[in-house]
Amino acid sequence: MPVVTSVRTRDVRFPTSIDLDGSDAVNVDPDYSAAYVTVTLDSGEAGHGLVFTAGRGNELVVHALQSYGALLVGQDVDLDDLGAASRRLVHDSQLRWLGPEKGVSHMACGGLVNALWDLKARRAGLPLWELLSTMEPAGLVDVVDFTHIRDALTPEDALALLTSARQGRDQRISELRRDGYAAYTTSPGWLGYSDEKLVRLCREAVDDGFGLIKLKVGGDPDDDRRRMRLAREAVGDDVRIAVDANQRWEVDEAIERVSALAEYRPWWIEEPTSTDDILGHARIRQGVAPVKVATGEAVANRIVFKQLLQAGAIDVMQIDSTRVAGVNENVANILLAARFGVPVCPHAGGVGLCELVQHFSFFDHAAVSGTTADRAIEYVDHLHEHFADPVVVRDGRYLAPTAPGNGARMHEESLDRWEFPDGPGWRELAASGALHAGTGRDTRALT
Amino acid sequence: MPVVTSVRTRDVRFPTSIDLDGSDAVNVDPDYSAAYVTVTLDSGEAGHGLVFTAGRGNELVVHALQSYGALLVGQDVDLDDLGAASRRLVHDSQLRWLGPEKGVSHMACGGLVNALWDLKARRAGLPLWELLSTMEPAGLVDVVDFTHIRDALTPEDALALLTSARQGRDQRISELRRDGYAAYTTSPGWLGYSDEKLVRLCREAVDDGFGLIKLKVGGDPDDDRRRMRLAREAVGDDVRIAVDANQRWEVDEAIERVSALAEYRPWWIEEPTSTDDILGHARIRQGVAPVKVATGEAVANRIVFKQLLQAGAIDVMQIDSTRVAGVNENVANILLAARFGVPVCPHAGGVGLCELVQHFSFFDHAAVSGTTADRAIEYVDHLHEHFADPVVVRDGRYLAPTAPGNGARMHEESLDRWEFPDGPGWRELAASGALHAGTGRDTRALT
Repeated sequence: MPVVTSVRTRDVRFPTSIDLDGSDAVNVDPDYSAAYVTVTLDSGEAGHGLVFTAGRGNELVVHALQSYGALLVGQDVDLDDLGAASRRLVHDSQLRWLGPEKGVSHMACGGLVNALWDLKARRAGLPLWELLSTMEPAGLVDVVDFTHIRDALTPEDALALLTSARQGRDQRISELRRDGYAAYTTSPGWLGYSDEKLVRLCREAVDDGFGLIKLKVGGDPDDDRRRMRLAREAVGDDVRIAVDANQRWEVDEAIERVSALAEYRPWWIEEPTSTDDILGHARIRQGVAPVKVATGEAVANRIVFKQLLQAGAIDVMQIDSTRVAGVNENVANILLAARFGVPVCPHAGGVGLCELVQHFSFFDHAAVSGTTADRAIEYVDHLHEHFADPVVVRDGRYLAPTAPGNGARMHEESLDRWEFPDGPGWRELAASGALHAGTGRDTRALT
Repeated sequence: MPVVTSVRTRDVRFPTSIDLDGSDAVNVDPDYSAAYVTVTLDSGEAGHGLVFTAGRGNELVVHALQSYGALLVGQDVDLDDLGAASRRLVHDSQLRWLGPEKGVSHMACGGLVNALWDLKARRAGLPLWELLSTMEPAGLVDVVDFTHIRDALTPEDALALLTSARQGRDQRISELRRDGYAAYTTSPGWLGYSDEKLVRLCREAVDDGFGLIKLKVGGDPDDDRRRMRLAREAVGDDVRIAVDANQRWEVDEAIERVSALAEYRPWWIEEPTSTDDILGHARIRQGVAPVKVATGEAVANRIVFKQLLQAGAIDVMQIDSTRVAGVNENVANILLAARFGVPVCPHAGGVGLCELVQHFSFFDHAAVSGTTADRAIEYVDHLHEHFADPVVVRDGRYLAPTAPGNGARMHEESLDRWEFPDGPGWRELAASGALHAGTGRDTRALT
């Protein structure tokens, strides 16, 4: 059995707050960042993972990758039993107090688990989605941690779902390779953008073939209405417009604010309130129908997703590739969504999230839900140039990934240039005076 | 306005896993630990806080205290407006991605906020509970962050509750100074203890004046029944016995397992399943009545507590002093409990948790709920000797704290001796061969 010989981490940050790319009502000045990890085996094989963060605090996930990584270094790891590897990290008897299963510690588990899946997929010579889609149902069930979700999904339920989806699977894999998977774009709608830029980017999105775009809301109510009107005028009646409040509102406020946009027909309201507020989402969903309710990028774990589904609180599950404990927990989330008949429309953007999360939608269609109805993967055209196997979106669709692995691997040159705070990219910015307050502020250590 | 001149941290751990003190169905081998923090002002005044952890990973909270501490160093801090200080930390636009408001990052905010309250209380020359109990209602409302709880508790609701509780407050403060506050003890019931030790400690607890004891459950069902029977026989019919499963069970399993103990009349079942599972707790509560349902030590924030109350999922709210974002969020939690008429019985134990959390029950009785009915503060007789102002429990009651501050301050000698991993306490243990697998395993950095 292979032995883990090293777990290496990098703190990589991009100065995106300078141009307010990615700004919304809550994340007003993100510096898109990656806590990057490489797990190496005694065979010389290496797998890569990353955890996305918004800048400050990236160092904490790096530290957590090191702490959890210490549980792996020098240990055997069975790539045929990644359920066991995940449980060893997630349920460590002392570390679990730090969550349990949420926040910095849980995201770090996910980074490491994803790196192990990257290793497994590279060894198989397959992109992650094909590896997952061609695994035997029983093998997939074995990677899922059913702890605390058995009242909604048992191993037997999961096996039945996956077995049933074997029907037509090879055909769907062929179609995915040929046609890709629908994308939607958030690029036009950041709060920091001018009306003119918003309208121009909305038109470009339609020209580029997108059938769904997304606007950030949650600032001034009049601004939201004006921007929604401009967007609706720009895209016409046939393109769907989702809106995203990034948890900005209270429960009743969310109902009012979404109702005020109703005439422009928002497709879904995303993160109307705290992502922890299951009961609040259920009330909002009743209050804003037929507008759909979506959430997930900040949902800490499968147990919260389970309840959002049990409570009838969401119409759309937005899994994220680096919030939960990696591939294993996202397989659980996708199975839960299928069990409740709720479509999965993954969250992406940031840095690396598109590269990572696309695999789950391809897998979902091939081997779980068997449908792409009302489903699309978020797409933002940022920072893909730093990846060894960048996503390709054409005519509003993600092309099926073909490179072996999970998509997380970054160019060494990018890792070096944007290593925080001493990479040449950061030193040049500091020397040029381009860093405004906030951007690249160092909280790594007290002075 | 005072300026923060330094934020100093210590990684302090105690080798409690050697004797299995504190062992339960999930925390099988905790090394009780503190991520300790001291905030110093330019006036020379210092305040102390700590975050309890179970050992491995304590370094991650230390790192987080440093990262959040960097937001304070060199900044003015208004001790008359600790609501603002808390919001500056909790809602930092980039760091909040790491939670939001949960896990390592949130606990670190709490450590710093608590240190600022320690400063404020020391300056006022009052123990924290008296400082809180004698604040004007409007001033207390100002420290609460109502974000995402306004559907259950508005600032107006809070003001009305606190104003109404002014009636009789001074009388209750006098009574608390004279009579203290009821404690309950978990010392007899750790899973690692033999039957003989269990019975002996149960009898001692009754002799010591405790009216409520607690047993850990969640291992083998027959063991649980035997231990519960032995405890019931040892304490007689008039002493209440709570049981605590530390999140070990699935929802249906919890109902079965509690029902199997019914003949021995458990008072409450604590943490029957994942603390994130609001809907699960609601189902369990219906399934096990009249046994009460209690949770809270791992509840990430006020938003989850709000829902546990809204869903009618708990009979007892177990606030913890170092899980949430400090005094401010615990004031919110106590107000929520009062709003729903649910008693607060704080979680304690670990290291320092008794010292810190007692203040909230004294405050609750003096200035919020105005009652002690069915309320008690957990007590475990561990590690108090390391504190400058250790709790005093006599005849089953906490005596009212009288020393200025929040109780977190530890002896310098203890901090030095048990600093991990290089303090003399740890070096001596390593040299003696007393460390078994797990105890004191270092995950601070990869080698």
